[in-house]
Amino acid sequence: MHPSASSPPHTDPTAAVESVLTAELARRRAEVVAIDHRLDGDVDRLIGYISAGGKRLRPQFLCWGFLAAHPEAERFTAGDRLPPGVLQAAAALELIQACALIHDDIIDRSDTRRGKPSIHRSVQKLHADHGWSGDAEHYGLSSALLLGDLALAWADDLFLDGFEQLGGPAGALSAWRAMRTEVLAGQLLDLRITADRSGDPEVAADDAMVVNRYKTAAYTVERPLHLGAALGGASPATVTALREYGAVIGVGFQLRDDLLGVFGDPAATGKPAGGDLIEGKRTVLLAMARAALRDRPELLAELDAGIGSDLLPAQVDRLTDLVAATTAPAEIETRISSLFDAGTRALAGRDEQGVPVVHPIAADNLLRLARAATVRDR
Amino acid sequence: MHPSASSPPHTDPTAAVESVLTAELARRRAEVVAIDHRLDGDVDRLIGYISAGGKRLRPQFLCWGFLAAHPEAERFTAGDRLPPGVLQAAAALELIQACALIHDDIIDRSDTRRGKPSIHRSVQKLHADHGWSGDAEHYGLSSALLLGDLALAWADDLFLDGFEQLGGPAGALSAWRAMRTEVLAGQLLDLRITADRSGDPEVAADDAMVVNRYKTAAYTVERPLHLGAALGGASPATVTALREYGAVIGVGFQLRDDLLGVFGDPAATGKPAGGDLIEGKRTVLLAMARAALRDRPELLAELDAGIGSDLLPAQVDRLTDLVAATTAPAEIETRISSLFDAGTRALAGRDEQGVPVVHPIAADNLLRLARAATVRDR
Repeated sequence: MHPSASSPPHTDPTAAVESVLTAELARRRAEVVAIDHRLDGDVDRLIGYISAGGKRLRPQFLCWGFLAAHPEAERFTAGDRLPPGVLQAAAALELIQACALIHDDIIDRSDTRRGKPSIHRSVQKLHADHGWSGDAEHYGLSSALLLGDLALAWADDLFLDGFEQLGGPAGALSAWRAMRTEVLAGQLLDLRITADRSGDPEVAADDAMVVNRYKTAAYTVERPLHLGAALGGASPATVTALREYGAVIGVGFQLRDDLLGVFGDPAATGKPAGGDLIEGKRTVLLAMARAALRDRPELLAELDAGIGSDLLPAQVDRLTDLVAATTAPAEIETRISSLFDAGTRALAGRDEQGVPVVHPIAADNLLRLARAATVRDR
Repeated sequence: MHPSASSPPHTDPTAAVESVLTAELARRRAEVVAIDHRLDGDVDRLIGYISAGGKRLRPQFLCWGFLAAHPEAERFTAGDRLPPGVLQAAAALELIQACALIHDDIIDRSDTRRGKPSIHRSVQKLHADHGWSGDAEHYGLSSALLLGDLALAWADDLFLDGFEQLGGPAGALSAWRAMRTEVLAGQLLDLRITADRSGDPEVAADDAMVVNRYKTAAYTVERPLHLGAALGGASPATVTALREYGAVIGVGFQLRDDLLGVFGDPAATGKPAGGDLIEGKRTVLLAMARAALRDRPELLAELDAGIGSDLLPAQVDRLTDLVAATTAPAEIETRISSLFDAGTRALAGRDEQGVPVVHPIAADNLLRLARAATVRDR
């Protein structure tokens, strides 16, 4: 029987992931520089990008997935280090995420990432500053493409090291493989539905949900938890509960992001105001706003014409107001709440012996993460 | 003692690689289409690209590496199928090569590959033909980037399946990992030396040789042979002999390519006449031509000004003649011959018992491949 644990953990079990990641990157740096010392700048740029951070959400989910079925989960929140294999697998998720973000920034033509220049832009600047020959912008894109590829290859290596350290537990490798295909397929589909827009808002909302499911929910929450649980040898009941939680909370994350992408404060999000409107992202929020404007064809036409075009700040404000005046934001808030509730229920199950299928320490922390990422204020 | 085998094999041991590759791609297609049926076009485009071919050089080297130390190598050239794990590992090399080519075509802004539109161009055309919204060219690039990523991830999966099928033989996994880092580092270095040109032709020739070593020799010949040998449990002496052969013959391949890139017949190479001059590729040939023109500063300046610029056909002819008139082409031919001789010697070693370290059937076939790829007429 698991003890109850409603107080927060003393130690974040993912803190050690950072040192494993740092050590791995140092080893990789030496490997690359041994090939040619002039590659030091490239690899340092990649390392700087990975080290600078983000919320390390995926490693956190992996670690809590591992602890969800661990009979002594308390030990690890009281200060014990997670097994090295778990830390390696968690760190691997940050490497794959580096590839995803670097390549995404190329695709989205983003100038910045986490408030700093995106990799392709910073390499472009290097090229321009040195007055090298050729097209600086294309040089930046090409270098970023290859650095993303390196991160993807290294992610695989590190995950496999962790997996083998743990004795190759059943189900973990297939979850890793599924995750990689899912995130790339989700991105391909996102490209496609953004380009090949359906006029029908209902279809557009369904499309956006499929993208959310694979590009965000599976990749960010469900599969990291699944990986952690499989690496910990969790029972099918635990895996199912975690995946259910992950699938719904992951969609909740994305819906919160949809709202922030239109209404978020640039100071808090690090992205321009109304960024999704400018980029022309096909979100569930925008599909619902379009549906709500069905009986106001002149406003719908204005919204459709504006999304994804070169918008002046006043036009962004106008479109933002247009979306805000629909029922869509409130509907999205309601959906987020019910997804949060469904996630909470998924974690609350017990087996025939009355034992929680997810250890209360893990459940508490997963709900804390869900709350942090889905609540209105952040 | 190995029997002598100077006659060519009855069956190409790599023929079965093709059917493994086809089956794997069919399985992957189903996986992707299950995520969303609209991805069928994307995945079919990738499959078509991989299936259309090329010479399957890397799988051939892997298979001959495996047979180099096999006591019954004859069986496999007489019709027996190689073990499934070997075929999977060999097929994985074609998947990684698909990623390398697709991403290379983005970097080189190539319109064609093997006489057909490159992936990014064919997706660009799809976008334009359907009148989808957004920038068709960037859409093509983005899709190609993600399809290359998929091929890279799938390559890892397939290699690992083969490796595990064969019981995880020592050294094979580390050779695979090294190969991936080497090819990407070689490409990054290639970008860098193309942009940051050294004025000194000696330095430029050395730089081009480092790129050849990692981007071509290691990736195309040395590591595939190393992988095959390690998968077959070859002795250190066999691995060393094969890697020596691979390193020199791989450079020979690239030097032949350098010559074809300037003097090749477009009908035979599938590339425009003087392609390397137009692209501004920093080859050993061009570095040597520049060195040879050191005492003709007006000609050197003309060559330097022309390489990598938008050249008219008459200008290409003029630069081609300029390079042809130097001692560089003959020097490169001499180098290729001596590399071929060194490769031949590397395969001819015997152990203390007088047994060839590379099985004669494998050695004969490797020399056949080397000849095909380095001889003047092709």
